[in-house]
Amino acid sequence: MPGLQVYKKELDYSYAAGLFPSMEALKKCPESVSRVLLSSKLEKTEAIDEMLSLCESHHIRTETADHALVRLSGKENVFVAIVFKKKYSDLLREARHLVLHQPSDKGNLGTMLRTALGFDFMDIAIITPAADYFDPHVVRASMGALFSLRIKTFSSFDQYRAENSHHHLFFFMLQGSRSLDEAANTAQMPYSLVMGNEATGLPHSFSSLGQAVRIPHNQLIDSLNLSSAAAIGMYAFNQSTL
Amino acid sequence: MPGLQVYKKELDYSYAAGLFPSMEALKKCPESVSRVLLSSKLEKTEAIDEMLSLCESHHIRTETADHALVRLSGKENVFVAIVFKKKYSDLLREARHLVLHQPSDKGNLGTMLRTALGFDFMDIAIITPAADYFDPHVVRASMGALFSLRIKTFSSFDQYRAENSHHHLFFFMLQGSRSLDEAANTAQMPYSLVMGNEATGLPHSFSSLGQAVRIPHNQLIDSLNLSSAAAIGMYAFNQSTL
Repeated sequence: MPGLQVYKKELDYSYAAGLFPSMEALKKCPESVSRVLLSSKLEKTEAIDEMLSLCESHHIRTETADHALVRLSGKENVFVAIVFKKKYSDLLREARHLVLHQPSDKGNLGTMLRTALGFDFMDIAIITPAADYFDPHVVRASMGALFSLRIKTFSSFDQYRAENSHHHLFFFMLQGSRSLDEAANTAQMPYSLVMGNEATGLPHSFSSLGQAVRIPHNQLIDSLNLSSAAAIGMYAFNQSTL
Repeated sequence: MPGLQVYKKELDYSYAAGLFPSMEALKKCPESVSRVLLSSKLEKTEAIDEMLSLCESHHIRTETADHALVRLSGKENVFVAIVFKKKYSDLLREARHLVLHQPSDKGNLGTMLRTALGFDFMDIAIITPAADYFDPHVVRASMGALFSLRIKTFSSFDQYRAENSHHHLFFFMLQGSRSLDEAANTAQMPYSLVMGNEATGLPHSFSSLGQAVRIPHNQLIDSLNLSSAAAIGMYAFNQSTL
Protein backbone atom coordinates (compact mmCIF):
# COMPACT_ATOMS: atom_id res chain seq x y z
CA MET A 1 0.00 0.00 0.00
CA PRO A 2 2.51 2.65 -1.05
CA GLY A 3 1.60 6.16 -0.07
CA LEU A 4 -0.48 5.39 3.02
CA GLN A 5 1.25 6.36 6.24
CA VAL A 6 0.51 5.42 9.81
CA TYR A 7 -1.72 8.23 11.07
CA LYS A 8 -0.25 11.42 12.37
CA LYS A 9 -1.84 14.80 12.87
CA GLU A 10 0.03 16.44 9.96
CA LEU A 11 -1.52 14.20 7.31
CA ASP A 12 -4.46 15.57 5.33
CA TYR A 13 -6.17 12.19 5.49
CA SER A 14 -7.06 9.69 8.20
CA TYR A 15 -8.65 6.26 8.68
CA ALA A 16 -11.85 4.79 9.99
CA ALA A 17 -11.40 1.15 11.00
CA GLY A 18 -14.25 -1.31 11.36
CA LEU A 19 -17.41 -1.89 9.38
CA PHE A 20 -19.75 0.42 11.32
CA PRO A 21 -17.60 3.59 11.20
CA SER A 22 -16.64 2.84 7.59
CA MET A 23 -20.29 2.56 6.60
CA GLU A 24 -21.09 5.84 8.36
CA ALA A 25 -18.44 7.55 6.25
CA LEU A 26 -19.71 5.96 3.04
CA LYS A 27 -23.31 6.91 3.79
CA LYS A 28 -22.87 10.39 5.25
CA CYS A 29 -19.72 11.67 3.62
CA PRO A 30 -18.92 9.60 0.50
CA GLU A 31 -17.17 12.53 -1.19
CA SER A 32 -14.47 12.38 1.54
CA VAL A 33 -13.73 8.68 1.15
CA SER A 34 -10.75 8.07 -1.12
CA ARG A 35 -10.37 4.32 -0.78
CA VAL A 36 -11.66 1.27 1.02
CA LEU A 37 -9.25 -1.35 2.37
CA LEU A 38 -10.47 -4.92 2.72
CA SER A 39 -9.06 -8.01 4.37
CA SER A 40 -8.67 -11.11 2.23
CA LYS A 41 -10.43 -12.94 5.08
CA LEU A 42 -13.52 -10.78 4.77
CA GLU A 43 -16.66 -12.86 4.57
CA LYS A 44 -19.39 -11.76 2.22
CA THR A 45 -22.42 -10.69 4.21
CA GLU A 46 -25.36 -8.48 3.36
CA ALA A 47 -23.63 -5.58 5.12
CA ILE A 48 -20.48 -6.08 3.05
CA ASP A 49 -22.53 -6.26 -0.14
CA GLU A 50 -24.21 -2.99 0.80
CA MET A 51 -20.79 -1.44 1.38
CA LEU A 52 -19.42 -2.62 -1.94
CA SER A 53 -22.41 -1.31 -3.82
CA LEU A 54 -22.05 2.09 -2.10
CA CYS A 55 -18.41 2.14 -3.22
CA GLU A 56 -19.43 1.31 -6.76
CA SER A 57 -22.09 3.96 -6.99
CA HIS A 58 -19.70 6.63 -5.65
CA HIS A 59 -16.75 5.38 -7.74
CA ILE A 60 -14.65 4.67 -4.67
CA ARG A 61 -11.69 2.33 -5.13
CA THR A 62 -11.68 -0.86 -3.05
CA GLU A 63 -8.59 -3.00 -2.60
CA THR A 64 -7.49 -6.05 -0.67
CA ALA A 65 -4.79 -4.82 1.70
CA ASP A 66 -4.13 -7.20 4.61
CA HIS A 67 -0.77 -5.79 5.53
CA ALA A 68 -1.93 -2.18 5.42
CA LEU A 69 -4.95 -2.97 7.61
CA VAL A 70 -2.74 -4.36 10.37
CA ARG A 71 -0.15 -1.63 10.03
CA LEU A 72 -2.61 1.26 10.00
CA SER A 73 -5.01 0.00 12.66
CA GLY A 74 -2.37 -1.61 14.88
CA LYS A 75 -4.74 -4.57 15.24
CA GLU A 76 -4.98 -8.02 13.73
CA ASN A 77 -8.76 -8.26 13.66
CA VAL A 78 -9.76 -5.29 11.52
CA PHE A 79 -11.35 -6.47 8.28
CA VAL A 80 -12.45 -3.17 6.78
CA ALA A 81 -11.13 0.37 6.90
CA ILE A 82 -11.62 3.48 4.85
CA VAL A 83 -9.20 6.25 4.00
CA PHE A 84 -10.84 9.67 4.17
CA LYS A 85 -9.76 13.18 3.38
CA LYS A 86 -10.06 15.58 6.30
CA LYS A 87 -12.87 18.05 5.85
CA TYR A 88 -13.37 21.22 7.85
CA SER A 89 -16.73 22.79 8.62
CA ASP A 90 -18.19 25.98 9.97
CA LEU A 91 -20.69 25.78 12.79
CA LEU A 92 -24.34 26.73 12.29
CA ARG A 93 -24.70 29.96 14.22
CA GLU A 94 -28.40 29.52 14.95
CA ALA A 95 -27.94 26.01 16.33
CA ARG A 96 -27.09 24.87 19.82
CA HIS A 97 -23.44 23.95 20.28
CA LEU A 98 -21.41 21.55 22.34
CA VAL A 99 -18.16 23.26 23.26
CA LEU A 100 -15.30 21.07 24.45
CA HIS A 101 -12.58 23.02 26.19
CA GLN A 102 -9.23 21.24 25.80
CA PRO A 103 -10.43 17.63 25.96
CA SER A 104 -7.35 15.42 26.12
CA ASP A 105 -8.59 11.82 26.02
CA LYS A 106 -9.29 10.34 22.60
CA GLY A 107 -11.82 7.83 23.88
CA ASN A 108 -13.77 10.51 25.75
CA LEU A 109 -13.74 12.79 22.73
CA GLY A 110 -15.04 10.10 20.39
CA THR A 111 -17.71 9.03 22.88
CA MET A 112 -18.89 12.63 23.29
CA LEU A 113 -19.22 13.02 19.51
CA ARG A 114 -21.36 9.87 19.37
CA THR A 115 -23.57 11.12 22.20
CA ALA A 116 -23.84 14.60 20.65
CA LEU A 117 -25.11 13.13 17.39
CA GLY A 118 -27.72 11.07 19.26
CA PHE A 119 -29.06 14.09 21.13
CA ASP A 120 -29.14 16.46 18.15
CA PHE A 121 -26.12 18.53 19.05
CA MET A 122 -24.86 18.71 15.47
CA ASP A 123 -22.35 21.54 15.96
CA ILE A 124 -19.22 20.94 17.99
CA ALA A 125 -16.57 23.49 18.95
CA ILE A 126 -13.25 22.17 20.21
CA ILE A 127 -10.95 24.60 21.99
CA THR A 128 -7.29 23.64 21.56
CA PRO A 129 -4.94 22.27 22.80
CA ALA A 130 -7.05 19.16 22.50
CA ALA A 131 -7.00 15.59 21.28
CA ASP A 132 -7.03 15.47 17.46
CA TYR A 133 -10.59 14.63 16.41
CA PHE A 134 -9.41 13.07 13.16
CA ASP A 135 -7.26 10.54 15.02
CA PRO A 136 -8.43 7.00 14.14
CA HIS A 137 -8.98 6.25 17.86
CA VAL A 138 -11.41 9.14 18.09
CA VAL A 139 -13.12 8.15 14.84
CA ARG A 140 -13.60 4.64 16.16
CA ALA A 141 -14.86 5.70 19.61
CA SER A 142 -17.29 8.05 17.82
CA MET A 143 -18.62 5.07 15.81
CA GLY A 144 -18.31 7.36 12.82
CA ALA A 145 -20.47 10.14 14.32
CA LEU A 146 -17.74 12.48 13.14
CA PHE A 147 -18.99 12.07 9.57
CA SER A 148 -22.39 13.54 10.41
CA LEU A 149 -21.35 16.49 12.58
CA ARG A 150 -20.04 19.97 11.94
CA ILE A 151 -16.84 20.30 13.98
CA LYS A 152 -14.58 23.33 14.25
CA THR A 153 -11.51 24.01 16.38
CA PHE A 154 -10.75 27.35 18.02
CA SER A 155 -7.45 28.39 19.52
CA SER A 156 -9.12 30.00 22.54
CA PHE A 157 -12.52 30.29 24.15
CA ASP A 158 -12.45 34.02 23.40
CA GLN A 159 -12.15 33.23 19.70
CA TYR A 160 -15.17 30.93 19.93
CA ARG A 161 -17.12 33.60 21.78
CA ALA A 162 -16.23 36.32 19.29
CA GLU A 163 -17.74 34.24 16.48
CA ASN A 164 -20.79 33.18 18.49
CA SER A 165 -21.54 36.15 20.67
CA HIS A 166 -25.30 35.61 20.74
CA HIS A 167 -25.07 32.14 22.31
CA HIS A 168 -26.21 31.70 25.90
CA LEU A 169 -23.37 29.95 27.67
CA PHE A 170 -23.76 27.09 30.17
CA PHE A 171 -20.52 26.09 31.88
CA PHE A 172 -20.41 22.67 33.52
CA MET A 173 -18.55 23.11 36.81
CA LEU A 174 -18.33 21.22 40.08
CA GLN A 175 -19.14 24.45 41.92
CA GLY A 176 -21.91 25.54 39.55
CA SER A 177 -24.60 27.63 41.21
CA ARG A 178 -27.52 26.23 39.19
CA SER A 179 -28.55 22.62 39.08
CA LEU A 180 -28.69 20.96 35.69
CA ASP A 181 -32.48 20.57 35.82
CA GLU A 182 -33.07 24.25 36.50
CA ALA A 183 -30.64 25.32 33.81
CA ALA A 184 -32.04 22.93 31.19
CA ASN A 185 -35.62 23.98 31.87
CA THR A 186 -34.94 27.67 31.36
CA ALA A 187 -32.51 27.50 28.43
CA GLN A 188 -33.21 29.68 25.41
CA MET A 189 -31.84 29.13 21.93
CA PRO A 190 -29.22 29.48 20.74
CA TYR A 191 -27.15 28.10 23.58
CA SER A 192 -23.83 26.36 24.15
CA LEU A 193 -22.98 23.64 26.65
CA VAL A 194 -19.33 24.05 27.65
CA MET A 195 -17.38 21.14 29.13
CA GLY A 196 -13.87 21.39 30.59
CA ASN A 197 -10.75 19.26 30.47
CA GLU A 198 -10.69 15.83 32.18
CA ALA A 199 -8.17 16.79 34.86
CA THR A 200 -8.59 20.52 35.29
CA GLY A 201 -12.21 21.30 34.43
CA LEU A 202 -13.03 24.83 33.28
CA PRO A 203 -11.28 28.02 34.43
CA HIS A 204 -13.35 29.46 37.26
CA SER A 205 -13.33 32.87 35.56
CA PHE A 206 -15.60 31.55 32.80
CA SER A 207 -18.59 31.52 35.13
CA SER A 208 -19.00 35.30 34.81
CA LEU A 209 -19.67 34.86 31.07
CA GLY A 210 -22.83 32.80 31.51
CA GLN A 211 -24.40 30.28 33.86
CA ALA A 212 -22.38 27.79 35.88
CA VAL A 213 -24.22 24.47 35.92
CA ARG A 214 -23.80 21.66 38.44
CA ILE A 215 -24.76 18.02 37.89
CA PRO A 216 -25.95 16.98 41.36
CA HIS A 217 -23.90 14.07 42.71
CA ASN A 218 -22.60 13.18 46.17
CA GLN A 219 -19.16 13.96 47.57
CA LEU A 220 -17.96 10.36 47.46
CA ILE A 221 -16.46 11.02 44.03
CA ASP A 222 -14.21 13.85 43.00
CA SER A 223 -16.09 14.36 39.73
CA LEU A 224 -17.88 12.41 37.04
CA ASN A 225 -15.99 11.08 34.03
CA LEU A 226 -16.02 13.78 31.33
CA SER A 227 -17.95 11.83 28.70
CA SER A 228 -20.49 10.71 31.34
CA ALA A 229 -21.00 14.31 32.46
CA ALA A 230 -21.40 15.45 28.86
CA ALA A 231 -23.92 12.67 28.21
CA ILE A 232 -26.01 13.67 31.23
CA GLY A 233 -25.82 17.35 30.26
CA MET A 234 -26.89 16.80 26.66
CA TYR A 235 -29.64 14.38 27.70
CA ALA A 236 -31.13 16.89 30.15
CA PHE A 237 -31.03 19.82 27.72
CA ASN A 238 -32.41 17.67 24.93
CA GLN A 239 -35.28 16.46 27.15
CA SER A 240 -36.28 19.97 28.05
CA THR A 241 -36.70 20.91 24.41
CA LEU A 242 -38.44 17.75 23.19
CA MET B 1 9.95 -7.23 44.21
CA PRO B 2 9.87 -11.02 44.48
CA GLY B 3 6.41 -12.47 44.80
CA LEU B 4 4.45 -9.76 42.91
CA GLN B 5 3.18 -10.96 39.55
CA VAL B 6 1.82 -9.04 36.61
CA TYR B 7 -1.94 -9.06 37.16
CA LYS B 8 -4.05 -11.95 36.05
CA LYS B 9 -7.54 -12.97 37.07
CA GLU B 10 -6.39 -16.00 39.08
CA LEU B 11 -4.39 -13.97 41.60
CA ASP B 12 -5.99 -13.21 44.96
CA TYR B 13 -4.54 -9.70 44.87
CA SER B 14 -4.48 -6.82 42.41
CA TYR B 15 -3.10 -3.31 42.00
CA ALA B 16 -4.33 0.24 42.00
CA ALA B 17 -1.95 2.57 40.15
CA GLY B 18 -1.84 6.32 40.61
CA LEU B 19 -2.20 8.54 43.64
CA PHE B 20 -5.96 9.08 43.55
CA PRO B 21 -7.05 5.42 43.33
CA SER B 22 -4.36 4.45 45.86
CA MET B 23 -5.62 7.04 48.33
CA GLU B 24 -9.19 5.81 47.88
CA ALA B 25 -8.07 2.32 48.85
CA LEU B 26 -6.12 3.59 51.86
CA LYS B 27 -9.04 5.69 53.07
CA LYS B 28 -11.97 3.38 52.35
CA CYS B 29 -10.47 -0.09 52.58
CA PRO B 30 -7.14 0.07 54.45
CA GLU B 31 -7.54 -3.50 55.72
CA SER B 32 -7.26 -4.74 52.12
CA VAL B 33 -4.04 -2.90 51.31
CA SER B 34 -1.00 -5.11 51.77
CA ARG B 35 1.74 -2.82 50.50
CA VAL B 36 2.40 0.53 48.88
CA LEU B 37 4.92 0.84 46.04
CA LEU B 38 6.68 4.16 45.54
CA SER B 39 8.88 5.57 42.81
CA SER B 40 12.28 6.88 43.82
CA LYS B 41 11.38 9.98 41.76
CA LEU B 42 8.33 10.68 43.92
CA GLU B 43 8.25 14.27 45.07
CA LYS B 44 7.11 14.99 48.60
CA THR B 45 3.84 16.86 48.50
CA GLU B 46 1.09 17.30 51.05
CA ALA B 47 -0.88 14.53 49.37
CA ILE B 48 2.08 12.16 49.61
CA ASP B 49 2.59 13.06 53.25
CA GLU B 50 -1.05 12.29 53.92
CA MET B 51 -0.65 8.95 52.19
CA LEU B 52 2.46 8.02 54.16
CA SER B 53 0.81 8.89 57.43
CA LEU B 54 -2.22 6.74 56.51
CA CYS B 55 0.17 3.86 55.84
CA GLU B 56 1.87 4.41 59.15
CA SER B 57 -1.33 4.48 61.15
CA HIS B 58 -2.59 1.29 59.47
CA HIS B 59 0.83 -0.43 59.66
CA ILE B 60 1.03 -0.82 55.89
CA ARG B 61 4.46 -1.48 54.43
CA THR B 62 5.79 1.10 51.95
CA GLU B 63 8.73 0.43 49.68
CA THR B 64 10.61 2.06 46.86
CA ALA B 65 10.08 -0.16 43.83
CA ASP B 66 10.80 1.56 40.52
CA HIS B 67 11.13 -1.58 38.49
CA ALA B 68 7.98 -3.19 39.88
CA LEU B 69 5.94 -0.03 39.22
CA VAL B 70 6.85 -0.10 35.53
CA ARG B 71 6.43 -3.84 35.23
CA LEU B 72 3.07 -4.01 37.01
CA SER B 73 1.47 -0.89 35.53
CA GLY B 74 3.01 -1.21 32.06
CA LYS B 75 3.70 2.53 32.20
CA GLU B 76 6.73 4.68 32.88
CA ASN B 77 4.95 7.50 34.61
CA VAL B 78 3.28 5.79 37.56
CA PHE B 79 4.77 7.02 40.84
CA VAL B 80 2.53 5.28 43.36
CA ALA B 81 0.62 2.02 43.38
CA ILE B 82 -0.91 -0.16 46.05
CA VAL B 83 -1.23 -3.90 46.25
CA PHE B 84 -4.61 -4.98 47.59
CA LYS B 85 -6.17 -8.25 48.55
CA LYS B 86 -9.39 -9.01 46.67
CA LYS B 87 -12.42 -8.73 48.89
CA TYR B 88 -15.89 -10.05 48.09
CA SER B 89 -19.15 -8.54 49.30
CA ASP B 90 -22.80 -9.31 49.51
CA LEU B 91 -25.27 -6.79 48.19
CA LEU B 92 -27.64 -4.93 50.49
CA ARG B 93 -31.02 -6.41 49.71
CA GLU B 94 -33.00 -3.31 50.67
CA ALA B 95 -30.88 -1.02 48.51
CA ARG B 96 -31.24 -0.12 44.86
CA HIS B 97 -28.86 -1.99 42.59
CA LEU B 98 -27.02 -1.41 39.37
CA VAL B 99 -26.96 -4.69 37.44
CA LEU B 100 -24.42 -5.00 34.63
CA HIS B 101 -25.20 -7.87 32.29
CA GLN B 102 -21.98 -9.16 30.73
CA PRO B 103 -20.10 -5.87 30.35
CA SER B 104 -16.96 -6.55 28.32
CA ASP B 105 -15.00 -3.30 28.20
CA LYS B 106 -12.73 -2.55 31.17
CA GLY B 107 -12.87 1.20 30.69
CA ASN B 108 -16.66 1.21 30.53
CA LEU B 109 -16.89 -0.98 33.62
CA GLY B 110 -14.58 1.24 35.66
CA THR B 111 -16.37 4.39 34.51
CA MET B 112 -19.76 2.93 35.47
CA LEU B 113 -18.47 2.09 38.96
CA ARG B 114 -17.29 5.68 39.39
CA THR B 115 -20.65 7.03 38.25
CA ALA B 116 -22.56 4.59 40.46
CA LEU B 117 -20.69 5.77 43.53
CA GLY B 118 -21.44 9.40 42.67
CA PHE B 119 -25.17 8.75 42.32
CA ASP B 120 -25.53 6.59 45.44
CA PHE B 121 -25.82 3.26 43.71
CA MET B 122 -23.65 1.45 46.27
CA ASP B 123 -24.58 -2.11 45.30
CA ILE B 124 -23.43 -3.51 41.97
CA ALA B 125 -24.29 -6.88 40.47
CA ILE B 126 -22.18 -8.11 37.57
CA ILE B 127 -23.53 -10.99 35.50
CA THR B 128 -20.72 -13.06 34.00
CA PRO B 129 -19.07 -13.57 31.55
CA ALA B 130 -17.82 -10.05 32.10
CA ALA B 131 -14.67 -7.96 32.36
CA ASP B 132 -12.85 -8.68 35.64
CA TYR B 133 -13.64 -5.81 38.01
CA PHE B 134 -10.42 -6.31 39.94
CA ASP B 135 -8.33 -5.77 36.80
CA PRO B 136 -6.01 -2.78 37.33
CA HIS B 137 -7.47 -1.07 34.22
CA VAL B 138 -10.93 -1.22 35.76
CA VAL B 139 -9.63 -0.04 39.13
CA ARG B 140 -7.98 2.92 37.47
CA ALA B 141 -10.98 3.87 35.31
CA SER B 142 -13.13 3.65 38.45
CA MET B 143 -10.78 6.15 40.16
CA GLY B 144 -10.86 3.78 43.11
CA ALA B 145 -14.69 3.79 43.40
CA LEU B 146 -14.38 0.01 43.65
CA PHE B 147 -13.11 0.41 47.22
CA SER B 148 -16.34 2.04 48.37
CA LEU B 149 -18.88 -0.20 46.65
CA ARG B 150 -20.38 -3.58 47.35
CA ILE B 151 -19.89 -5.65 44.19
CA LYS B 152 -20.99 -9.20 43.57
CA THR B 153 -20.82 -11.40 40.50
CA PHE B 154 -23.55 -13.81 39.43
CA SER B 155 -23.24 -16.55 36.85
CA SER B 156 -26.66 -15.77 35.36
CA PHE B 157 -29.40 -13.20 35.59
CA ASP B 158 -31.68 -15.88 37.02
CA GLN B 159 -29.28 -16.37 39.89
CA TYR B 160 -29.33 -12.63 40.60
CA ARG B 161 -33.10 -12.61 40.46
CA ALA B 162 -33.43 -15.60 42.77
CA GLU B 163 -31.46 -13.75 45.45
CA ASN B 164 -33.24 -10.44 44.90
CA SER B 165 -36.75 -11.41 44.01
CA HIS B 166 -38.38 -8.34 45.57
CA HIS B 167 -36.49 -5.86 43.36
CA HIS B 168 -38.44 -3.98 40.69
CA LEU B 169 -36.50 -4.46 37.48
CA PHE B 170 -35.82 -1.75 34.90
CA PHE B 171 -34.19 -3.02 31.71
CA PHE B 172 -32.45 -0.48 29.52
CA MET B 173 -33.28 -1.38 25.93
CA LEU B 174 -33.32 0.42 22.61
CA GLN B 175 -36.91 -0.76 22.09
CA GLY B 176 -38.05 0.00 25.64
CA SER B 177 -41.73 0.86 25.89
CA ARG B 178 -41.36 3.44 28.66
CA SER B 179 -39.27 6.57 28.45
CA LEU B 180 -36.59 7.05 31.09
CA ASP B 181 -38.36 10.04 32.65
CA GLU B 182 -41.61 8.16 33.11
CA ALA B 183 -39.86 5.12 34.54
CA ALA B 184 -37.70 7.15 36.93
CA ASN B 185 -40.63 9.16 38.22
CA THR B 186 -42.69 6.11 39.14
CA ALA B 187 -39.92 3.85 40.50
CA GLN B 188 -40.48 2.26 43.89
CA MET B 189 -37.77 0.89 46.15
CA PRO B 190 -36.07 -1.46 46.05
CA TYR B 191 -35.28 -1.40 42.36
CA SER B 192 -32.56 -2.49 39.96
CA LEU B 193 -31.33 -0.76 36.83
CA VAL B 194 -30.16 -3.42 34.38
CA MET B 195 -27.72 -2.56 31.57
CA GLY B 196 -26.72 -4.92 28.76
CA ASN B 197 -23.51 -5.75 26.96
CA GLU B 198 -21.80 -3.14 24.72
CA ALA B 199 -22.39 -5.00 21.48
CA THR B 200 -25.47 -7.10 22.09
CA GLY B 201 -27.56 -5.21 24.67
CA LEU B 202 -29.99 -7.24 26.79
CA PRO B 203 -31.88 -10.34 25.68
CA HIS B 204 -35.29 -9.23 24.50
CA SER B 205 -36.95 -11.87 26.68
CA PHE B 206 -35.93 -9.97 29.84
CA SER B 207 -38.55 -7.31 29.19
CA SER B 208 -41.31 -9.59 30.46
CA LEU B 209 -39.64 -9.65 33.90
CA GLY B 210 -40.03 -5.93 34.53
CA GLN B 211 -40.15 -2.62 32.70
CA ALA B 212 -38.22 -1.97 29.49
CA VAL B 213 -36.84 1.56 29.57
CA ARG B 214 -35.78 3.67 26.61
CA ILE B 215 -33.42 6.66 26.74
CA PRO B 216 -34.90 8.95 24.09
CA HIS B 217 -32.38 9.72 21.36
CA ASN B 218 -32.63 10.14 17.60
CA GLN B 219 -32.03 7.46 14.96
CA LEU B 220 -28.76 8.98 13.74
CA ILE B 221 -26.88 6.73 16.15
CA ASP B 222 -27.24 3.02 16.60
CA SER B 223 -27.09 3.31 20.40
CA LEU B 224 -25.40 5.31 23.13
CA ASN B 225 -22.07 4.19 24.55
CA LEU B 226 -22.76 1.84 27.49
CA SER B 227 -21.18 3.95 30.20
CA SER B 228 -22.93 7.06 28.86
CA ALA B 229 -26.29 5.29 28.91
CA ALA B 230 -25.66 4.03 32.44
CA ALA B 231 -24.71 7.55 33.56
CA ILE B 232 -27.91 9.02 32.14
CA GLY B 233 -29.99 6.23 33.69
CA MET B 234 -28.52 6.59 37.16
CA TYR B 235 -28.70 10.38 36.98
CA ALA B 236 -32.42 10.30 36.11
CA PHE B 237 -33.35 7.76 38.78
CA ASN B 238 -31.26 9.57 41.36
CA GLN B 239 -32.91 12.89 40.51
CA SER B 240 -36.38 11.47 40.93
CA THR B 241 -35.58 10.36 44.48
CA LEU B 242 -33.69 13.45 45.66
